[in-house]
Amino acid sequence: MQQRLGQRSLLFTRAPVIRSYASVVGKKEGEGPLRHGFDAISEDSYFGEKTWEMAESHMLKQCFQLCCDKAGCAPSELDAIFAGDLLNQCVSSSFAMKDSSVPYFGLYGACSTMAEALVLSACHVAAGYAECCLALTGSHFCSAERQYRFPLEYGGQRTPSSQWTVTGSGAVMVSAGDSGVTIPMVTPGRIVDAGIKDPNAMGSAMVPAALDTLCAHFADTGRGPADYDAFFTGDLGALGHDLLEHQLEQRGLGPGASYMDCGVLIYDLSTQEVNAGGSGCGCSASVLCGHILPCLEKGIWRRVLFAATGALMSPTSSQQGGSIPGICHAVVLERRD
Amino acid sequence: MQQRLGQRSLLFTRAPVIRSYASVVGKKEGEGPLRHGFDAISEDSYFGEKTWEMAESHMLKQCFQLCCDKAGCAPSELDAIFAGDLLNQCVSSSFAMKDSSVPYFGLYGACSTMAEALVLSACHVAAGYAECCLALTGSHFCSAERQYRFPLEYGGQRTPSSQWTVTGSGAVMVSAGDSGVTIPMVTPGRIVDAGIKDPNAMGSAMVPAALDTLCAHFADTGRGPADYDAFFTGDLGALGHDLLEHQLEQRGLGPGASYMDCGVLIYDLSTQEVNAGGSGCGCSASVLCGHILPCLEKGIWRRVLFAATGALMSPTSSQQGGSIPGICHAVVLERRD
Repeated sequence: MQQRLGQRSLLFTRAPVIRSYASVVGKKEGEGPLRHGFDAISEDSYFGEKTWEMAESHMLKQCFQLCCDKAGCAPSELDAIFAGDLLNQCVSSSFAMKDSSVPYFGLYGACSTMAEALVLSACHVAAGYAECCLALTGSHFCSAERQYRFPLEYGGQRTPSSQWTVTGSGAVMVSAGDSGVTIPMVTPGRIVDAGIKDPNAMGSAMVPAALDTLCAHFADTGRGPADYDAFFTGDLGALGHDLLEHQLEQRGLGPGASYMDCGVLIYDLSTQEVNAGGSGCGCSASVLCGHILPCLEKGIWRRVLFAATGALMSPTSSQQGGSIPGICHAVVLERRD
Repeated sequence: MQQRLGQRSLLFTRAPVIRSYASVVGKKEGEGPLRHGFDAISEDSYFGEKTWEMAESHMLKQCFQLCCDKAGCAPSELDAIFAGDLLNQCVSSSFAMKDSSVPYFGLYGACSTMAEALVLSACHVAAGYAECCLALTGSHFCSAERQYRFPLEYGGQRTPSSQWTVTGSGAVMVSAGDSGVTIPMVTPGRIVDAGIKDPNAMGSAMVPAALDTLCAHFADTGRGPADYDAFFTGDLGALGHDLLEHQLEQRGLGPGASYMDCGVLIYDLSTQEVNAGGSGCGCSASVLCGHILPCLEKGIWRRVLFAATGALMSPTSSQQGGSIPGICHAVVLERRD
């Protein structure tokens, strides 16, 4: 039986292993500081398709296939796929996976989707429901921009606090095993709504959720930031990163240099004109698969905490005056030899 | 360790129990043949709110609270919520649950969401990750109509094959236990795309997915329709029901009178002007909680199969000429004394 740890963390008696991972990103992301870690960089924002939505789906399918290829595993060997994205009705994931013939669990966790999918994949494998699961997500700047903001042709002004939706995707294959990068623990998130309503400051709106999950994780496990070689939030961006760092310091959890945000890492904020940094499901997913997991694999880090964050609003909820509820799921990644 | 059964079914060594359930529906559903089973019927399509989206969220929150009240359980006793809906970015669920303080897994399974949430809730409880989980979903005719089709004021013509989105919701609390209505087995679905493109015949578009999951379930378990007192698809409607029945008969799985569709059951198709029947996440969810579970509780049935169906398209994917991929997750519900 699995062990529940503290208020809401889970400790897996037999920690699942990350068998394979892959990342596919767009041109802008391929020009950023993490360019050497991605498996594929597309120069074509349409990925050979006719629409941006189909491009996003194409990218997810390519990423899925790469992940299977790297594992030397046919899709038919998978027992379950956990996937989702930002598009209305999550069509980029479902269209990407519609020919896979693998049991499919559609998720909606906004930009926290990779962590939510990893939590559920790890739970599924650790309980013996599956030998091998795959967590998949991604986002596309162009499809997100026209769905959430303005037609691209309009050339809307962007506030300094706004973030740039990453064109990118990540796929992680989780299976039973003994060594390699493992998932020994997870801390699922709850929805936290601090009443913030500015859809141009979503990073800041997600800070309370990130803080809630990190504090729960540290309390449940008796650990602190120093127990991790590095820990990551999903896409708080530069403003959110600094806000969270300040909040953690106030609680005696000062993270020091080990705290990073995927939305800050993926672009060069001084030259790439992305304002406060990256966002979108593809942000934490591609940084995980193009940077964090490679660093664990190479032994640069041995234990990290991956805490992807999501803003659970919609254009309609914001137009109706709604706040921006946030969520953050945390996953421990630990190398075992 | 949990037992995997055949290709993709799961058999729980200790079957989780349905501790409580609740349903809240709208006026039209409250005038239908199942009216006596629902916990609450709202005469006000706005549920006291200012917009239909907020009305939908209000309904979900009311349903959640009723389910907790019926169990004599504070929301804080829950270990996880699995929820989703049809609105863009699933905001009715996330806004309904934003103050619950319970770990939250957002799902997108379209109209199959209740079954997907039950599968994952049962998995979570059976593995010991949670003592008590809650599966929640719903839909609202007015919010769905304007998001998926036309502004209500436009009064668009409806084809005979079209279905009526149910204003309704269901909540099911799943916990560890020994007797009552249990979930001994589940068969997760995979995406099936038969290339059907008519968004006014979604029931028919989901038939291949329902057929795929039912055939997998019967093959995995060695059971047939006769082993169930009744079995239900989610919202295939009258046309889809007949199509599926024919397909099953062709495979020697003729279901006879025991096969019903939630979309056919919830309305009086001859008088309520819903064309081919009900649809939406709230369709199978409210029929489950307002009809199927009460019949199991009363001992009218002892073993049923609940196979909710979902169409994984979006207005955008249809406008771009995309097909309508379907999915169907199946859950066995069995009364044990």
